Amino acid sequence: MKLLTFSRTGQQSRLGLMLEGQILDVSSAWNVVEHPLQGSPAPTSVLDVIRAGHSCMDALALLQNAARHRPECCVDADEVTFLPPIPQPPKNVICVGRNYKAHIVESNLARGRAAEDFPKAIELFTKPATTLVGHKQAVSRHAAHTAILDYEIELGVVIGKEGSNIDPADAMKYIFGYTIVNDITARDLQALHGQWFKGKSLDGTCPMGPVVVTKDELLDAGKLDLVLSVNGEVRQSSNTSDLLFDIPQIISQVSAGLTLQAGDIIATGTPSGVGFAMTPPISLESGDLISARIHGIGELLTTIAR
Amino acid sequence: MKLLTFSRTGQQSRLGLMLEGQILDVSSAWNVVEHPLQGSPAPTSVLDVIRAGHSCMDALALLQNAARHRPECCVDADEVTFLPPIPQPPKNVICVGRNYKAHIVESNLARGRAAEDFPKAIELFTKPATTLVGHKQAVSRHAAHTAILDYEIELGVVIGKEGSNIDPADAMKYIFGYTIVNDITARDLQALHGQWFKGKSLDGTCPMGPVVVTKDELLDAGKLDLVLSVNGEVRQSSNTSDLLFDIPQIISQVSAGLTLQAGDIIATGTPSGVGFAMTPPISLESGDLISARIHGIGELLTTIAR
Repeated sequence: MKLLTFSRTGQQSRLGLMLEGQILDVSSAWNVVEHPLQGSPAPTSVLDVIRAGHSCMDALALLQNAARHRPECCVDADEVTFLPPIPQPPKNVICVGRNYKAHIVESNLARGRAAEDFPKAIELFTKPATTLVGHKQAVSRHAAHTAILDYEIELGVVIGKEGSNIDPADAMKYIFGYTIVNDITARDLQALHGQWFKGKSLDGTCPMGPVVVTKDELLDAGKLDLVLSVNGEVRQSSNTSDLLFDIPQIISQVSAGLTLQAGDIIATGTPSGVGFAMTPPISLESGDLISARIHGIGELLTTIAR
Repeated sequence: MKLLTFSRTGQQSRLGLMLEGQILDVSSAWNVVEHPLQGSPAPTSVLDVIRAGHSCMDALALLQNAARHRPECCVDADEVTFLPPIPQPPKNVICVGRNYKAHIVESNLARGRAAEDFPKAIELFTKPATTLVGHKQAVSRHAAHTAILDYEIELGVVIGKEGSNIDPADAMKYIFGYTIVNDITARDLQALHGQWFKGKSLDGTCPMGPVVVTKDELLDAGKLDLVLSVNGEVRQSSNTSDLLFDIPQIISQVSAGLTLQAGDIIATGTPSGVGFAMTPPISLESGDLISARIHGIGELLTTIAR
């Protein structure tokens, strides 16, 4: 199932299910289609669904099956505003730094370090909710603050239930689903401020979506193609099999002594091909169109505004 | 005014005003004492007050003045459970690294760097809400995860209204008040994981409180004594006048291209005297009692559990 959060002109944010080019508006369908939770309030966000658990997922499956007979509950995907699937996660988005082997090598070379200087443990930083924007949204060029604005396609893992000290063998039980994250980064601020938070947290620099795909639809998240292009030119093209720390390792290391909560999001790192490692380094500029595609999830589009 | 969030056995969290050894229970007093907002719902948290603005503050001032005649609305401070004043801020707590000159020197020496290697720009990292605990709470020793658990007393700035690109000259307008933060840190994880998030984010490692003091009661936050002791032995003793980046500079640098929101918390850095810079380095251990005092705010007590 592909869940999303969207709005229509002048309305509050709503929960949707992505069908073929159409979105099932769950608020509209909830009391029209027969299901066991009818009468209880409709979930209005992806976080509502995660917190409600299995019975809600079962109801949504019935809604999805009935959608073809209920065109009045569907809306064209071109007619909505996509919001980040989870606009306010319990924690800042937790991001894994330097986690694709080829990207580590390019970063080391770009910063004058030894090529094979791999991290010994997972590197973590965060992006606050003020960075989150949805599919097809414009992000400021932030020219007053940074000379080098860069893209980073990442597989986002959405946590489904609370847990800490999670064993890698149990990690999949704590995952609700997956999304696409573009960890847009101000490279000069990242270096200038020592710790990465500042360079990673300019407003709007975490496009996310368009959907969260539930884990049952993406059985091997460790073997997914990722492709990012700028104005049609492919810049990043890799596969999650190149991860230095895989998803179970990430969840285990992040959750050691730290309680993950339903709705927390972990961005798992980016592959090689970022702009600052090119010769010469290249920045995103106003008017650029970024496409971030992950097999089985979809395509996340972002434009760079003024 | 000194605001706090507390609970009494079996009850939901409540808003309080700290008087002399007594807490005025705002929920109890709201409909008993005459004030212009009577009839509207009582604020139940410090964040409610910040978001409600001046009219709410005026009502609370009337409640505070009337408190001496309303002992039935007061409760002894020893009889409540102190919660973090803001248990779920909009963003992770934003923390400034290496910001007291004497602490920078001691950290540099402890890590084998040149003593006078000062940061050129503010260093920022975050602690998620799962680290927040209130006054008089116990924090795990986290012995399975870290060999060196350390304390860091810090002045916490609570943001009062939304803003970005804030000029240092305007910074005070964006402050609601101040609190005490103990940025408890797993030193080995801080170094092992490269970026500091992991070493700074073990559960419960951000004691905060006991109160938020409104800025009108703490007119010169740039000249406050801070003292931290462990089991009665003074370890940190400094003054906020030793800050490398002062509070207006911090707010200006943090908010550059990043929207601060009402209820966001910025921990402004810690002075010298931390345990890992002692010879030999010393860790917090089970049974330790930590007192963190800041002049004009109060004393934040924390015990280290198993």
